[in-house]
Amino acid sequence: MGSLSDNFRSIKPYVPGEQPRDTERIKLNTNENPYPPTPMTARELGRLDPSAFNLYPDPEASELTEAIAAYHGLQPENVFAGVGSDDVLANCFMAFFNSGRPILFPDITYAFYEVWADLFKIKYEKVPLDGELRIVKDDYLRENGGIIFPNPNAPTGICMGLDDIRAIAEYNSDVVVIVDEAYIDFGGETALELLKEYGNLIITRTFSKSRSMAGMRIGYALAGEELILQLKKIKNSYNSYTMSSAAIKLGAAAMADEEYFRSTIEKIKRTRESAAQRLRELGFHLTNSESNFLFASHKKISAKKIFEELKKRRIYVRYFDKPRIDNYIRITVGTDAEMDALIDALTRILEDEK
Amino acid sequence: MGSLSDNFRSIKPYVPGEQPRDTERIKLNTNENPYPPTPMTARELGRLDPSAFNLYPDPEASELTEAIAAYHGLQPENVFAGVGSDDVLANCFMAFFNSGRPILFPDITYAFYEVWADLFKIKYEKVPLDGELRIVKDDYLRENGGIIFPNPNAPTGICMGLDDIRAIAEYNSDVVVIVDEAYIDFGGETALELLKEYGNLIITRTFSKSRSMAGMRIGYALAGEELILQLKKIKNSYNSYTMSSAAIKLGAAAMADEEYFRSTIEKIKRTRESAAQRLRELGFHLTNSESNFLFASHKKISAKKIFEELKKRRIYVRYFDKPRIDNYIRITVGTDAEMDALIDALTRILEDEK
Repeated sequence: MGSLSDNFRSIKPYVPGEQPRDTERIKLNTNENPYPPTPMTARELGRLDPSAFNLYPDPEASELTEAIAAYHGLQPENVFAGVGSDDVLANCFMAFFNSGRPILFPDITYAFYEVWADLFKIKYEKVPLDGELRIVKDDYLRENGGIIFPNPNAPTGICMGLDDIRAIAEYNSDVVVIVDEAYIDFGGETALELLKEYGNLIITRTFSKSRSMAGMRIGYALAGEELILQLKKIKNSYNSYTMSSAAIKLGAAAMADEEYFRSTIEKIKRTRESAAQRLRELGFHLTNSESNFLFASHKKISAKKIFEELKKRRIYVRYFDKPRIDNYIRITVGTDAEMDALIDALTRILEDEK
Repeated sequence: MGSLSDNFRSIKPYVPGEQPRDTERIKLNTNENPYPPTPMTARELGRLDPSAFNLYPDPEASELTEAIAAYHGLQPENVFAGVGSDDVLANCFMAFFNSGRPILFPDITYAFYEVWADLFKIKYEKVPLDGELRIVKDDYLRENGGIIFPNPNAPTGICMGLDDIRAIAEYNSDVVVIVDEAYIDFGGETALELLKEYGNLIITRTFSKSRSMAGMRIGYALAGEELILQLKKIKNSYNSYTMSSAAIKLGAAAMADEEYFRSTIEKIKRTRESAAQRLRELGFHLTNSESNFLFASHKKISAKKIFEELKKRRIYVRYFDKPRIDNYIRITVGTDAEMDALIDALTRILEDEK
């Protein structure tokens, strides 16, 4: 007889950014949107009928997938919805990375890719970014069991051009290529127009960033019908009803308010550019982030020290203790007032170092 | 170069009961509760602040797990919450059934067990129920890689005694034993008191049946701290944020209203007993269901025919085209009015057969 723990799956779990509970803090560490979701979600919330919560939700989440399809000019058969894009991506890993050959993703990227590969026992190779932390297209033109990368990449915020993505999709027609567009609304060019050409391409999106709805847990994949069908099969083998009635209704309502969506994104982009400018003036080196975060390094003071000093002042940013990026902090773009407070704090921290 | 589909995980997905969209129908096919959830959920819904949906929810869902722990007289460290008990159980399969030895579950039981085992490539043996569709304890006292069964079992509704469960947990101390108590609030004895004695035991529950909240997707596991920690690790390797802010708040509120909960259950039990009596008078054979459904067979007319005839009358029950139970229909216990309509329809269907 062995011990109970012999039966456990061995894994190294993902460590999400802190979720401090105090309210007197500035939270720039998990790339949330500083603005509330469209008032349409509040209106829809008021219309929810709690007496109908006794019934299972629509397992197809049709109201939501139809709204998403209409928004992107696609068919509902091209849309798969899940509990945030993490759920969608985990389903993709299970559904599509089963060839036995290693999948490829950048060495510096969203940390969950490695965690899912470990969880599902998928072989992988981490492909190094170049010296300026950019994804090199040519490194993905070789035999593999599938490819995934974010565009813009995280935590660098750097975008890849559509021609490079096309070349990767084209060369790898025998495997699934996933472009994780969690941050695409903040910059860069979506690969949407490639979906019609490439049946092996999947684009994933989330409501957690540009749509200000991290709390409701909604994400989706866009792809050709064959891949979406396969995703649905996997999801229906895991949990038939992942999207609550509330998430379906509120998500669908949120897709309808393009004007609010655009104005929020424009505000964040303006704040990003002015904050980047002021950080450079303080001596920071920044990657060319087109996302809702900045990735910053300073010659005179270590990123770890900055992270800790900010935390003492109850300003939370993200620090990754990983090779090549352990001297960077990732700063979510908040409101102008939050960025003012950040710049003030950094100014003082740098002065104290002199 | 192979084809794209060579990369797909091969599975046979679970087929949930139909979710007909017409409103002029009687839905007795997915074991939903016919009554709305406690008014506390409506009150909490009105208190939700949609402007805070931009923030990620608490990944620990502490407000919910604390309410569940308090209700059961346990600690939050003994509670794991998920997107319905399907999500919780899928996490259990991933976390605990990794020994390489086959896991055991009844041949006639919740169909998802086999689907999860296939999905995660877990070996299994289906252990036959006895001639009266009962689980035989002694069949589980042998080497295996883990055990799962519902109590009461589905779709039979038959309960197992606590002594039998204790014997199974005791004999199998080297593997994880899961008692799926989705329906326990409607009858039978919970294995809760065994949790302190057996570190290998997990009990799972759902808000979808007795708490009338299928639409909100909430389920949970109760177990010793070691197993709960392991479950959290697996969940954090899949999706850190599974429970929306809304599900956390509404779930916690629902746990507080014991009086409403008990009165709803008593109503369903009374309806179950009177419906069972009337079905017997119509010549049906019924298992001794202590759940919120009845499992019924008739000598003179096939279950498939009854299922189809009822569907023509827009009354939906569940029919399983599987060996040993293909002459049974499973009928969810609805309101008294719904059961009256069902009995009327069955009376006519039987008369037409004469």
